[in-house]
Amino acid sequence: MDFKVRAATKEDCKEISRMILELAFYENMPDQVKISHEELEQDGFCQNPFFECLVAEVPEEHKSKEGFTIVGYALYFYTYSTWKGRSLYLEDLYVMPEFRGRGIGKGLLSKVAEVGKKKQCVRLQLSVLDWNAPTRDFYAAKGAQDLTVSEGWHFIRFDGQNLDNLANEAPKD
Amino acid sequence: MDFKVRAATKEDCKEISRMILELAFYENMPDQVKISHEELEQDGFCQNPFFECLVAEVPEEHKSKEGFTIVGYALYFYTYSTWKGRSLYLEDLYVMPEFRGRGIGKGLLSKVAEVGKKKQCVRLQLSVLDWNAPTRDFYAAKGAQDLTVSEGWHFIRFDGQNLDNLANEAPKD
Repeated sequence: MDFKVRAATKEDCKEISRMILELAFYENMPDQVKISHEELEQDGFCQNPFFECLVAEVPEEHKSKEGFTIVGYALYFYTYSTWKGRSLYLEDLYVMPEFRGRGIGKGLLSKVAEVGKKKQCVRLQLSVLDWNAPTRDFYAAKGAQDLTVSEGWHFIRFDGQNLDNLANEAPKD
Repeated sequence: MDFKVRAATKEDCKEISRMILELAFYENMPDQVKISHEELEQDGFCQNPFFECLVAEVPEEHKSKEGFTIVGYALYFYTYSTWKGRSLYLEDLYVMPEFRGRGIGKGLLSKVAEVGKKKQCVRLQLSVLDWNAPTRDFYAAKGAQDLTVSEGWHFIRFDGQNLDNLANEAPKD
């Protein structure tokens, strides 16, 4: 199928927001989404954006049942390794169910890698849930390493009250 | 002990570079460090910096055996959750061995949390190796969740030839 992958614009944020919610529904956690398209517009299209995004678009004649032509997205940001330097982190990769199996996910992923190479990034990283074997297999088949399995990396998070407590204990200037 | 935590400047990059190497020595992998202080200067102090850094400084009269007054650092960058929004990721937190046990690590961590809160970040995340129980306990004691244990998150990485392969397969514009 014909599709195009391009950098998202501010005007795409409503569509991206719709797909973020679709992905959360798929994961059975739609009530976890607290981010609106206005926040995406603000955080992704300011002077020092918090993220960048690619969208996959199909021609009008192949639009979805509901009439959508933007049918997938990849949202990523720049990170940094103090050993290796510039890196990319892929936060979300999503393709609408009726458009799967046509290489769109692979197209988005490869384009993110290409963007990263252009910025001299030496790593592309992401996280996958243990139970999500199809997705883990998808990345493994493309040569990615599972660092939690091979090196024992654990993901740690502060949020809510714990984060407030930490911040409140910061040394004074 | 008296110490100060402050934002790193470009002039601190040599000291940060020295401590990155010390940390890699501690982890028994000094040959993994490919980043020079010139690259830190370039990547951390450009228009859209790839990271930010705090340093811990002690007064001249408490300098280290080798004469250093910058004795710790915390290097972090901004990330993004499509569910919750702005987040921070702490890549490195290090205090020189002879200055440990005096609250400097905690001071750096809290200051990073404070910086995050000022930028409306709702999460502070990081990674820890499985075998590094003292560090995992340090974060757990401050209320952090281990998402690899509680939710089964795995860390996935593309680099080297795998990343090149991906990038080379990107759909053409």
